Parts: sequence; structure tokens; C-alpha cells
Amino acid sequence: MFTRVHQYSTNEQVRVPNVIALVGLPARGKTYISYKLCRYLNWIGIKTRAFNVGEYRRQACDFEKEGKADFFDHSNERAVRIRDECAKHAMEDMGRYLDSKKGEVAVFDATNTTRPRRKMLLDFCNREDHETKFRLFFIESVCDDPDIIDSNITEVKVNSPDYKGRMTEEQAKQDFLQRIEKYSAQYAPLCEEKDAELSFIKVINAGRSFFVHNVNGHVQSRVVYFLMNIHLLPRSIYLTRHGESEYNKIGRLGGDSPLSENGVCYAHKLRKYFEKENIQDLRIWCSQKIRVAQTANHLKDLAAHVEYWKVLDEIDAGICEGLTYEDFEARYPKQFSERDKDKYHYRYPSGESYEDLVARLEPVIMELERQSNVLVISHQATIRCILAYFDNKKREELPYLNVPLHTVIKLTPKAYSCQIEMFKFKIDAVDTYRAKPTEELPWELNGTESNLCRSP
Amino acid sequence: MFTRVHQYSTNEQVRVPNVIALVGLPARGKTYISYKLCRYLNWIGIKTRAFNVGEYRRQACDFEKEGKADFFDHSNERAVRIRDECAKHAMEDMGRYLDSKKGEVAVFDATNTTRPRRKMLLDFCNREDHETKFRLFFIESVCDDPDIIDSNITEVKVNSPDYKGRMTEEQAKQDFLQRIEKYSAQYAPLCEEKDAELSFIKVINAGRSFFVHNVNGHVQSRVVYFLMNIHLLPRSIYLTRHGESEYNKIGRLGGDSPLSENGVCYAHKLRKYFEKENIQDLRIWCSQKIRVAQTANHLKDLAAHVEYWKVLDEIDAGICEGLTYEDFEARYPKQFSERDKDKYHYRYPSGESYEDLVARLEPVIMELERQSNVLVISHQATIRCILAYFDNKKREELPYLNVPLHTVIKLTPKAYSCQIEMFKFKIDAVDTYRAKPTEELPWELNGTESNLCRSP
Repeated sequence: MFTRVHQYSTNEQVRVPNVIALVGLPARGKTYISYKLCRYLNWIGIKTRAFNVGEYRRQACDFEKEGKADFFDHSNERAVRIRDECAKHAMEDMGRYLDSKKGEVAVFDATNTTRPRRKMLLDFCNREDHETKFRLFFIESVCDDPDIIDSNITEVKVNSPDYKGRMTEEQAKQDFLQRIEKYSAQYAPLCEEKDAELSFIKVINAGRSFFVHNVNGHVQSRVVYFLMNIHLLPRSIYLTRHGESEYNKIGRLGGDSPLSENGVCYAHKLRKYFEKENIQDLRIWCSQKIRVAQTANHLKDLAAHVEYWKVLDEIDAGICEGLTYEDFEARYPKQFSERDKDKYHYRYPSGESYEDLVARLEPVIMELERQSNVLVISHQATIRCILAYFDNKKREELPYLNVPLHTVIKLTPKAYSCQIEMFKFKIDAVDTYRAKPTEELPWELNGTESNLCRSP
Repeated sequence: MFTRVHQYSTNEQVRVPNVIALVGLPARGKTYISYKLCRYLNWIGIKTRAFNVGEYRRQACDFEKEGKADFFDHSNERAVRIRDECAKHAMEDMGRYLDSKKGEVAVFDATNTTRPRRKMLLDFCNREDHETKFRLFFIESVCDDPDIIDSNITEVKVNSPDYKGRMTEEQAKQDFLQRIEKYSAQYAPLCEEKDAELSFIKVINAGRSFFVHNVNGHVQSRVVYFLMNIHLLPRSIYLTRHGESEYNKIGRLGGDSPLSENGVCYAHKLRKYFEKENIQDLRIWCSQKIRVAQTANHLKDLAAHVEYWKVLDEIDAGICEGLTYEDFEARYPKQFSERDKDKYHYRYPSGESYEDLVARLEPVIMELERQSNVLVISHQATIRCILAYFDNKKREELPYLNVPLHTVIKLTPKAYSCQIEMFKFKIDAVDTYRAKPTEELPWELNGTESNLCRSP
């Protein structure tokens, strides 16, 4: 799971490098899958990078000059040579990335629609000069639903660097459809009999069905499970901390104190906010702490479902539970400075680290991927982890993300990113943010759009 | 997942009843899948029961008198009627089980090889007179590998109540092969196009491939992931607690104390034991507590792999950490008696319950299912949970399973059970077992064979 599922990063001693190669015609969501996989694997602590052969091709030549869709014609010898070179180049980079141990998983994002190309990849993975042979897994995206293909072309491809600003949307679309046809002529789908020795998953019609063959090892098993849980239906995820607690007011860490007066006021306003949002079938997930349950109580009847997950509890501060930062520094000065040095990996004595938290929250992420609209009411550290996943933040930044009290963070996942909106409520609350001592800027979210901060 | 994955039992407020129906010719491992699923779902807190139509048939008539394999001939009208009646009877029982909320998942273990039979099931699940409609999921086991079929017939079927003691093994086998043929004549496998609206998984050749279609909801998603992780290859799982610790000696709960002198002695002997066992590719999984790491240190070089999982840490006794049972009773008498009343659900203030532990250990179970030979070095409460899974123990019994110090528990999974062997080492250790006050018998393992207790 899993963990290995639960201790990805620190304890894997014998980890085989994995190559995950996409297979499929253009506009089948290969880059979407590749983006989501990278984000997920990196977040759980498996260092992963995507190698997009299209990018190599764009660097190598100007496909417009090369004849647009004709560039992808199998009989265009010059183009075939260039495309082969680009694939080889990407493969070599991938090999260096894995051999150097900089990464553990490389995602090879290309069409890989012919058997010879896949054979070339397999031979590359088995080459004797690698430190360890690479384990190869294919993800084929098969789609015969014209609506899905059409929406993919319209949404993504006409905005591709190949077309953007170079021709009209309609021209781009026509050229792209021709490109698909060129590929279709040579396409050999993965096949249970002919490719019996390979390991692969076929994702059929954007996840309506799956064919899984010969899954081998932990990474492949995780990838399969992840692919089966993601979906593209529109929805939003809402994150908020509990209302201000009595402990927040006096600056103490952890504990299980009730809401302050301001905190209760936030719970009321939160209810009003969700009354307006008027979401069908809203699910509320809470931690098991009193301050969270109290906050959730005000919204109970708006939800189809309220669940109390222990895994959503705040980071366990171990021997520092109940202390203020000042107490902590005074009593354990060495620990205190250790924490500042590497906050992500620092584990409170008898408590947890952010890394531990990520492992504990993995099930929440997987379930969030599966669900539609969910409100998560939890804590500063746990929400930082969840936010880092959706906003693709590095682990160094994760423990410094600013998640203020009395604020709703609304996430709306898009194909290649996640739109983030912050709604700060006008109710007083203490500021529990503690910046990295050396840092200037406390945080910055990637998001897709500017981070809207409004008061509802 | 996951809980939902992590809070199965306590928080599911809107849970749809699920029917999981097997599909497949005889000797395709349907009952094996059904057994494993029931064990797994019950262990994670989803109440599940299997309804085996074969058992109803055996109660309804003597198939030997009815003509053995001919009983399964489609043209045998009397037999068809009896078989239909049995299926309906099982369905009605299943309906009562789910409607009464006694159970959440019913596994319908029958061949279900024809479309009309599956239609009948679907209609049954959608019947208006149920409290809630049942969600239906099919698991089809498809196998064309003659070796797998043959071994299944030989191992399981000739020992079936239909044959045992009634004829020779060879006669039984021949009759059974005829029975398969009778079924084959009518068999309509599930099909992506014709059954597009159904939700199903096809397990192909005992897990070499899978076809997954239209998975719907949490339970189905868990089931799919579980099926993809189980395997039938021979292997053993070894469980042991750390050697005796300093805290064990003085009867204190939890903490993070080092090994006692006896404990160190155990670590040495443990090494000798595994030197003799001489296991290829042994994996060692440890908790992150000092006493466990110290124990594992002596075996490190015998293993292909050592991992330290936080989820394997001992139950968190919260405010009772570091207390003895006497302290606990004296300081918190009410809590102490609460715990005795319902030890499985009792949660230490600011700590964990056994129920919490099961949720935390689910990833370990899933990964143990995937792996070959593993040694788990962990703690009394965590090992109780793992043992309860493999030995199919009820949650009331789980917290009272006797897991003494200085003992290796060797589990060898079989098709319908798990062989359990206990190796008690001759090294002194305190007894940390505390029986249920009212109970006479401390424990009893199901196992397959008598529980061998030997000293190696």
C-alpha cells in the first residue's frame, strides 16, 4: 500500500527503477495520466519525472515547416528519422536519471503505438550497462468514444505549443485529426496474447473499463490502483481548519481543546457559506478532535454524509503536545533548531514528522480522487499535506504553506493543474503561522489562476 | 480507501448494501475468492457473509441419487427446477441478511454462468421491497490454463462433501470433469458490450490478467484492489514480537525502552532460527521502536530487505503510556473497567483502540498478501490484529489472542485456511498476557492443523 505503502521514502532499500511508458493515439489523455502520476508518486515520496518525447521533437525541429500533420506520416523518411532520434534522446536522458539514482520512476510520455518502438524500449530497459535493469510497465489509453476524443482535442490540443498562435482553432483541430489518422495506420494495441510477457494496463474510455496484465511489484501495483480511482468529472474539494480553538488562542500546540468564541462564530459563518454553495451530495470528512467535531456540527444537516477519520487528526507533536513554541524552544533548544533545519523530515520525539503525515494521509488523497464534492475539516499540518498534493508543491515548501484559520480553500481540479481559491472570513483569529526563520516569502501557491482571496 | 479506508466501521453513515456475485465454471476458484473476500471485508469492519448455493443444493437433495454429473445437465428438468429453487432460496436469505442490516456485503457464491441467471440476480437486487436497492458486482473467474484447473480439481473438489467417502478420487475427478462440461454448454461469459451496464471484474488465469468494468463505489473499489493483490504461490509469513524489553520487565505499557538481557538473548536465537530456515529473499518489516530495531539488527544480513514501518508501532496507549496495569487501574478506574467491557472498541484517551489499529494495519495486510516470505517484528497488539486476519478470528476475540514474548508464529496460507505453527523459544520472559476478567479460556486459534508448539 500500500507502503511500503506507508513508508515509501525512508525505507525502501531494494528499489528497482521503474519505467512507465504511455501507449496510445494522440488525444487519448496520455499527458494527463503522466502529469497525475508524477504528482502522485512524488507526493508519496517516490521520485518521479516525466520525459515527454513531444517536447524533444519541438526542440529538434519546427513541425510547421516540416509539413504539419505530414510530419507524422510513416512514409516521411526524414521525419521518421527525426522522431526516432528524439525518442532515443529522451530514452538516454531517462536512463541517466534512473542510473544516477536521482529518480526512481521515469514516465516515458510518447505514443509508442508500434511494436518495434515498444521492443526498443524493452531492450533499453534490459540493457546490461544499467546499474540495475529497469522494470517496464505500459499504460495504454484506448478510447473509441468520440465525445471524449473531441473534448480532449478541443480543450488541450488546440492550445498545444504546436499550434497556439500559429493557426486558427479550426485549422489546428483539422491538422490534429490528420495527425491521429497518420498514427492510426501504424497502431498496434497491446494484446494479451502477443504481448503476454509484458506488464501493462489498458485504460479504456477514460476509465470506464481496465484491462490489467502481469502486474509486477509495488510501484506498478500502486499505479494501477491510482489509475482506477482518478476521474475527470467536474467537482470541488473544500479544505478548512476547525474554527479557532482555546489552545490556538494561547498558542499551544496540539491538544484537544474546544472552540473559542471566535471559533464558534466561524462555524456559523461556514454553515452560511455552504448554504449558499448549495452542493448536492456533499460529503464532510472530519478529524476526531473536539474542535473539528464542533465545527462540523453546525453543518451536519447540509451534508449527505459526515465521517470522522482518525487519519485526519493533527500532526502528533509527541513530547511537545500542549507546549507553546516558546516553551518548546526553551525546553528543547536542540530539537527546536533541528526542526527548523528540515521541517519536512523532522519527527517530534514520540510524535510524527510531516513525512509520516503524508504516509498517513495517502488513503485520504486516494479517496478524494475517487469522490465528487467533499469538505475536509482538519488541521494546519494535515491540510498543508493535502494542499501540497493538489498544488504539486515540493516537500521543502510543504511545511511552510500558509493555511490560516477561518479560511475556506476551494480546489477545483483541472486536467493539468488545480484551481485554488481562498475565502478568508472576516472573523478574528490568531495567526498560527510560523515562517521559516531564514525565509522571506512565506508561501506561494501554484494554482492555475491567480489565487483569489475574497471574503464571501 | 481507503476508509473510508481508514474508518470503515464507525463512520459509514450512508452505506449501500452490496451483493458480490461470483461467475465461472466449476473449479475456477470461486469459493476460494469468496472465502478470502469474506475474511478481508470482515476484518476491515465491513460485515460480510457468503451464501454458497452448492450448500443449499446439498441440503435439498442427494446429488448422487439424482445422477451425479447428470444432475447438472441443462436438459434434466427436475434437476433444473431443484437448482433454481436453491438459488432462489439462497437469494432470499441474502436479502434478509442485508435488509435486516445484519450485514453490509453478501457474497453470492454460485456458478451464475448464464445471462438469465444473472438477470434474475440483478432484478432481485433492484426489487422495490428492499430497504435500499442492493449494489451488484460480479467477479468472474476465467481460466484456460489446464494446470490451474487440474490442481484445483485435485486439491479441492475431490474432497468436496459431494464426493468425499462416496467414491474413489479418480471417480470423483471424472464425475467432476463431466459436471464442468455440462456447465460449459450453457456458459455465457461476461462481456464488455453485452453487459455494458453491469459492474464486474474478470479474474483471468488466477490473477495473471484482470478485466475491470464500471467499478462503482467504495466496496467494489476495495474488492478490486484486494483481488489484484492476492496470490496462491507457496510462502510463509513469520510474526514475532521484539525480545523482552526493560519496560516489559517492570510491567509498563508502551514507551520506547531497549531490550532486556533476555531480550538480547532472544534476538540471537532468532537469528539462529532463521539461519536454519534459510529463506531466499526474506523481507523483514519492523516497527520504528527501539526494542524492535534492536531485535532486527541481529538478522539484518539474512534479509534481502529490512523496512521500518511506523504503522507497525505498538498501540498508542495515550495517557496510559508508561503506566503499569496497576497504575492504570488505580488512576483511571472507570477507564480501566470500560476497557474490560469492550476491549476491541475501547480507545485509550489521546491514544488508540484495537479498531484504530486494524485500520492502520490494513496496508500491511494488503502488502503481506502481495509478498512472498516476510518476517514481521512488531508488538503484542499489532500482531494480534495481523493474526486475527490470517486466522479469521472475530473482533471480540482479537484483543485476547495470546501472543507471548520469545515466540515465532509461522503462518502458511492455504486455499481455505491458514496453517499456524508456534515456536516457543526457551528463553525466560515475563508474561504480558492479561486475560479477560470473566473469561476462562485465554485463546484458541482456528488454524488448519493442531497448533504445534515446539521449541526449535
